[in-house]
Amino acid sequence: MIIVMKRGTGQPDIDNAVAHVEALGLKPVVIQGTERTVIAAVGEERVAGIGSLESCPGVDEVLPILAPYKLASRELKPESSVITAGSLSVGKGTIGVIAGPCSVETEEQILACAHAVKAAGASALRGGAFKPRTSPYSFQGLKEVGLKLLAEAREQTGLAIVTEVVSPDDVDLVSKYADVLQIGARNMQNYRLLEAVGKSHRAALLKRGPSATIDEFLLAAEYILDGGNQNVMLCERGIRTFESHTRFTLPLATVPYVQQRTHLPIVVDPSHGTGHTALVTSMAKAAIAAGADGLIVEIHPNPDKALSDGYQSLNFAQFETMMKECRRIAEAVDRTLGVGV
Amino acid sequence: MIIVMKRGTGQPDIDNAVAHVEALGLKPVVIQGTERTVIAAVGEERVAGIGSLESCPGVDEVLPILAPYKLASRELKPESSVITAGSLSVGKGTIGVIAGPCSVETEEQILACAHAVKAAGASALRGGAFKPRTSPYSFQGLKEVGLKLLAEAREQTGLAIVTEVVSPDDVDLVSKYADVLQIGARNMQNYRLLEAVGKSHRAALLKRGPSATIDEFLLAAEYILDGGNQNVMLCERGIRTFESHTRFTLPLATVPYVQQRTHLPIVVDPSHGTGHTALVTSMAKAAIAAGADGLIVEIHPNPDKALSDGYQSLNFAQFETMMKECRRIAEAVDRTLGVGV
Amino acid sequence: MIIVMKRGTGQPDIDNAVAHVEALGLKPVVIQGTERTVIAAVGEERVAGIGSLESCPGVDEVLPILAPYKLASRELKPESSVITAGSLSVGKGTIGVIAGPCSVETEEQILACAHAVKAAGASALRGGAFKPRTSPYSFQGLKEVGLKLLAEAREQTGLAIVTEVVSPDDVDLVSKYADVLQIGARNMQNYRLLEAVGKSHRAALLKRGPSATIDEFLLAAEYILDGGNQNVMLCERGIRTFESHTRFTLPLATVPYVQQRTHLPIVVDPSHGTGHTALVTSMAKAAIAAGADGLIVEIHPNPDKALSDGYQSLNFAQFETMMKECRRIAEAVDRTLGVGV
Amino acid sequence: MIIVMKRGTGQPDIDNAVAHVEALGLKPVVIQGTERTVIAAVGEERVAGIGSLESCPGVDEVLPILAPYKLASRELKPESSVITAGSLSVGKGTIGVIAGPCSVETEEQILACAHAVKAAGASALRGGAFKPRTSPYSFQGLKEVGLKLLAEAREQTGLAIVTEVVSPDDVDLVSKYADVLQIGARNMQNYRLLEAVGKSHRAALLKRGPSATIDEFLLAAEYILDGGNQNVMLCERGIRTFESHTRFTLPLATVPYVQQRTHLPIVVDPSHGTGHTALVTSMAKAAIAAGADGLIVEIHPNPDKALSDGYQSLNFAQFETMMKECRRIAEAVDRTLGVGV
Repeated sequence: MIIVMKRGTGQPDIDNAVAHVEALGLKPVVIQGTERTVIAAVGEERVAGIGSLESCPGVDEVLPILAPYKLASRELKPESSVITAGSLSVGKGTIGVIAGPCSVETEEQILACAHAVKAAGASALRGGAFKPRTSPYSFQGLKEVGLKLLAEAREQTGLAIVTEVVSPDDVDLVSKYADVLQIGARNMQNYRLLEAVGKSHRAALLKRGPSATIDEFLLAAEYILDGGNQNVMLCERGIRTFESHTRFTLPLATVPYVQQRTHLPIVVDPSHGTGHTALVTSMAKAAIAAGADGLIVEIHPNPDKALSDGYQSLNFAQFETMMKECRRIAEAVDRTLGVGV
Repeated sequence: MIIVMKRGTGQPDIDNAVAHVEALGLKPVVIQGTERTVIAAVGEERVAGIGSLESCPGVDEVLPILAPYKLASRELKPESSVITAGSLSVGKGTIGVIAGPCSVETEEQILACAHAVKAAGASALRGGAFKPRTSPYSFQGLKEVGLKLLAEAREQTGLAIVTEVVSPDDVDLVSKYADVLQIGARNMQNYRLLEAVGKSHRAALLKRGPSATIDEFLLAAEYILDGGNQNVMLCERGIRTFESHTRFTLPLATVPYVQQRTHLPIVVDPSHGTGHTALVTSMAKAAIAAGADGLIVEIHPNPDKALSDGYQSLNFAQFETMMKECRRIAEAVDRTLGVGV
Repeated sequence: MIIVMKRGTGQPDIDNAVAHVEALGLKPVVIQGTERTVIAAVGEERVAGIGSLESCPGVDEVLPILAPYKLASRELKPESSVITAGSLSVGKGTIGVIAGPCSVETEEQILACAHAVKAAGASALRGGAFKPRTSPYSFQGLKEVGLKLLAEAREQTGLAIVTEVVSPDDVDLVSKYADVLQIGARNMQNYRLLEAVGKSHRAALLKRGPSATIDEFLLAAEYILDGGNQNVMLCERGIRTFESHTRFTLPLATVPYVQQRTHLPIVVDPSHGTGHTALVTSMAKAAIAAGADGLIVEIHPNPDKALSDGYQSLNFAQFETMMKECRRIAEAVDRTLGVGV
Repeated sequence: MIIVMKRGTGQPDIDNAVAHVEALGLKPVVIQGTERTVIAAVGEERVAGIGSLESCPGVDEVLPILAPYKLASRELKPESSVITAGSLSVGKGTIGVIAGPCSVETEEQILACAHAVKAAGASALRGGAFKPRTSPYSFQGLKEVGLKLLAEAREQTGLAIVTEVVSPDDVDLVSKYADVLQIGARNMQNYRLLEAVGKSHRAALLKRGPSATIDEFLLAAEYILDGGNQNVMLCERGIRTFESHTRFTLPLATVPYVQQRTHLPIVVDPSHGTGHTALVTSMAKAAIAAGADGLIVEIHPNPDKALSDGYQSLNFAQFETMMKECRRIAEAVDRTLGVGV
C-alpha cells in the first residue's frame, strides 16, 4: 500500500501516519519526493481498518498494491481450473455451452428446449424456476414445480441443469434438482447467499453485477471459495453504461483480463450482454474468439410468446446456426465447443 | 406502448403484431407514417409478456409510455408522504437527519455517537450491526450484540434507530430493536428481502443500487408498498460512473425528479455519495438546496481508527459544523432541519 | 415522433400541442389512452425546432421514431459500402488491417514499422504526425516532417498511409501525403473539421468519441457524407465507463448493430479499446469474430521506449502472432484478412 | 510514480525497470514487499515517455503520484482566482450568473433576453452565434450577424457577452464582439482551439467534456494557461452516465473537489446538466449550496418556440423565480449572487 501525503505536510503528520501503518502490522518505508512525501507500507494489506488511514491528517490518497482477493488469484494457483458438473465441462480445451429459456414455463416448453440444446451439441440446460424480476407485476417463476420439470428434462436428455438460486433458504431445495447453482447479477453481493453457496457441494455460476468492478466480482467469488466450494465459474453478462442501443454493454476484455489474474473459468452471456436477439450470435462468436471458457444463451421455442426475455432469446433454428458458427471459431482457437454432435 | 415497425414491413407482419397486441388485452391503433408504420397499444401495459412483442417479425422497437410503477406514483397519491418513526420525521416541512457510524464497534463508540447526534439536533441514529462487506476479509459487524447497543443508545437519548437488514430471515430480529429497516444499495434488488420488509410494520429506508435506473429503484419500492408497508423512504446514495475522484457520483437531480414522479420522500447520503470526508458537507448542503427530505451521514469519534468507512466519516466537530451550515440552507428553502437544538 | 402528454392534461393543452405539431409541418394523430393522451406526429421529424415541443404545457416526453441520420442509413443504401484507398480495402469479403506506431518518431522507427506491417500481410500503415495530446507537456508530434516520413514509407512498401488530421486548416496539407484522413475520438464532434473532410477527396476514418451515442456517431459521419465525401469508415475505439482495469471499454456489439443500421464499414481499434498490450490480440480476434470490417492496431519496434502509447503497443513479434491468429478467425467467418502474405 | 512489478519477477527485470526510471531522469527507490517488489520513482514525473514504463518486462502497473497539471494547481497558487470581464465577476464573494438563449435567433429575441437578464440582477448575457450541432440538419447559428446582435445587447444593457467559439480561425472575430470566449464541451480537447484561446486577451469559460476525467479537464485548462491566458473559468455541465431521465448527470462534487485542487473558479450549468426545464432551478440552488462560483443558465422568451434547447430553457418568469431562490441560498453561504437588483 502506498500512502501519498499532501504537499507541505509537516513531520508530525508523517510520524502519525507511520505510527498508524505500524499499528496495522505493516512496515513503513518513507520516501521523500521532490514535491510530496510517500509512505510505502509493506506487508499483508488485506486487513480491517486500512480505509481509516485516509482519515489521518496530511494523507491525500491511499493506493492499494496487492489484489484484494487471494483464493481466486492465479498467483496462488497458477493452473487454470476446469469445472465439471454432469454433462457440463468448462475450462481449458472445452468451451461449455449452457442454453435454455429464461423461465421454465411449461413441461412442453422446457422439454422442447432440452431436446434442442441436446441436438445442437450444447453441454447443459438452463431455465429459471425462481425468478428475480424487476417488477412485482411480472411473472415470478414456477418455483419447485419448475425445478421438477428441469429434473425431468435431465432424465430425458442427460443434460446437466443450471438454475438460479435467489435466497440462502433455497440452496438446499435447488441443490436437490440442479447440477449448477446460478447466482444472478442482482445477487452478486448478496453475501448470505454467497456464504450458503460456499457451503454447498454444487458447482456455482456467479454472474457479474452490472456495476461491479472486476475486483468486487472476484471478491464475491472469494466468498464462495472461502466457504469451501472450489467449483466456481465466473460469468460476464454485461455492465451498465450510457449505451442505450444495447440493454447492457458486454466488455469482452474481461475474458483475457480475468484469465490473466485468476484460475477460475469465465463464461460469457451474450443474451443479457446485448438484450437483442439480432446481436446475440455475433457476440457469442466474439466471446469465443476472445478466449471465453463457456457461453450461456437464452433460447425459446417461440420467443414472441415467451413470458420473459423474449426480445433476447434465439429460436431453435437461430440457436443451431449460432452453434455451427461458434464451432468454427472454437476450432480456430484450438478448442472444442460443447459436447459435440 | 408504441410498437415501431421496421421500414418496408409488409402487411402480414403488421397484422401479426396487431394480433399480439390484442392477445395481451390491449387495443391497437395503427399509424401509417411516411417512412415507417407505428402501432400504439392502448391499455394497461404493465403485464407479463410485453417484452415478447419485440420478437415479432418486423418489429424494430417497443417504447413503453406508462411508468412501470403504480403505488409509488404521484398520479395515484398526489400528496407528498411524510414518514415518521420515533424521533425521526422525513418529508414536507421537516428534513430528517440520520447520523452515526458505519458500523457499531463498541458500547463507548456508539453511545458517544448517539450523544453527538442528539447534541447537534439531528433526528435519528444510524449504525450497522449486520454489515454487507465487499471482502470476506473485512469486519462483518457485531450482529445482535450491535443491535442491543443501538437499543441502549435509544434508551439514553430518545433517538430513533436506523439499521440495515441484509436477509429476510433477520427482519424479525432487527425489527425488535430498530425503528427503521435500512435496505442497502447492494440489496436493492434482493426481492425476497423486499417482500419480507413489505410485510413488516417498521418503516423502510431503501437505498438506490449504484447501477439502478430510477424506474428500477421505484419498482423496488413498489415491492415493499405492494407487500402492505406504506412507510418507505427512498435514499439516493450515488451511482457508478467513470468518475474516479469520488467513490460514486451523487446525481442530485434525482431529488426533484423523484419528487415530481412519486409521493415518497427522498433522503440523500453524501457520505457514500462522495466517499471522501472533505466533500461530505458541501454535498449535504447541496442536497438540501435541491429539496431533499432527509440526510443520512456517517460520523465517528475517531475516523482514523474506524473499522469501516473512516475515509468518508465526519468527526463530531465536523458534523456539528455541517449541521449548522445545513440549517442555514434549510431556512433558505423554508424548511426545518432535524429536531432542532 | 410520439408526444406523451401528462396524465390529466386538459383539452386546451392537447390542442396547443397539436397546433405545434402542425406548425412543424407534421400530421398529428391523437390517441386517447386509458391513463394518458399520446400524439403521434407523422412526417419528416429531422427538422429544427422539434426539441421545443417538450416545452409545450402538458407535454411529458417526446420520443423520436426515425433515426436522426439519413445518408449513413442502410434504409437509403441497402448494399454494404466497400472503401478502398491505395493498398487498403475495407468491407465485404476483405478485413482491412491498419497498423503502425502511435506517433511517427524517427525515420528508422517508421520504416521499421512499415516493413513489419508489410511482412505480416497487413493493408496500411498508420502513424501520427499531428498529435492531439491530453497534456501540453507531452510529445506533440513531428508535424509535416512526420508526414514526409510516412510518404517515404509508402514509397518503400507500397502501403497506404492513414494519419490523423486535427484541424480544418491542415486538411489540404495532410491530404498531400496521406491516403486516409483519420479523425480522432476527441474530434468526433469538431464540426468544422468534419465539414472540411467532407469536402476532401481522401477517404476518412472517423473514430467514435468515448462518450458518443451511436446516433451521435452516425450523425458525425453524416456531416462528412453530407459534404460530398462518401468514403467514410467508422471506427469503434472504446467508450468511457466505470471499468478501470481497461483504459476504455470496447463494446463490440457496436459492430453488428452498426452493420444492421448503416452501409458504412466499421473498423475496430483494440489498442485504445483496451489500453494494455496484454489484451490487444484477444480483442482483435473478438472483433473479427463479431464481424468487424477492419482493424487498426498500434505497434512499435520497442514499446518500452515509445514516446507515446507504449503501454498498449505490440512489438513486431506480437503483431505477427496477432496477424496469424486473426487470419484463422477471418477464415472461420469466410473473409480475408489484410492483403495476404 | 510507483512501479508495481509482477509477483515473482526476477532481478534482471527489476534492474531493467530501474535503469528505465533513471533514463527518464528520475531517482528509483526499490521496495521489497512480502508479495511484490515496488519501485518508487522520485522526481518530476510529467515528462514524455512515462507511459512506456508499463511495457518493460515484469512491470504490472504504473501509478502516478503527482497531479498531471501544474499551472492550474492550488499548490502553485494558493489563493483563489477571481475572473472579471466587464459586468461579470466570478469567484470568492461573488457568484456570477450568465444567462441567455442557447442560440441568438433574432434581434427581438436577444434584446428581450438581455433585458430579462439585467432585470433579474444577473451578471452577463450568453447566446450562441456559432453553434456546434449534433446533426447537420439542425439550425447552425447566425454567425457574425449573431455576434453583432450580442454587441447591440451589451450596448443597451451594459451586460458582458459570453459566446462560444468553435474554431481557432474564429477567435479573433469572436473576440471583437465578446467579453468571454466559451469553449464548448465537445471542443474541450480541441487543442488547436485551446492554444488559440491561450493567446487571446479575452477571458475563457471552459466547459467540461461529458466523458472527461477531472484530470483531463484541468489539463485542458492547462493548455490555455500555458498559452499565457490566466483568465480561465471552469464549467461543470454534466457527464455521460447510464441515467436516462436526465440528459446528462450533473456531478456537483466536482465543485468542492476542484476548489480544493485548483485556484480557478468553477461555474455550473444546470441547463445542460439536467436537460429538463423542470429540474433546472433545483440544481441551480444545489450548485450554489455546493459552493459554485457561478451559474450559466439557458433562458428564452418562448421556450416552446426556441430553435434549439427549448426543452431545457427557463422562460423569464421562471428565471426570475430562480434568481430569487438562488439569492436566498447565496446569502446562506455568505456570498452575493450576480450584480444585485
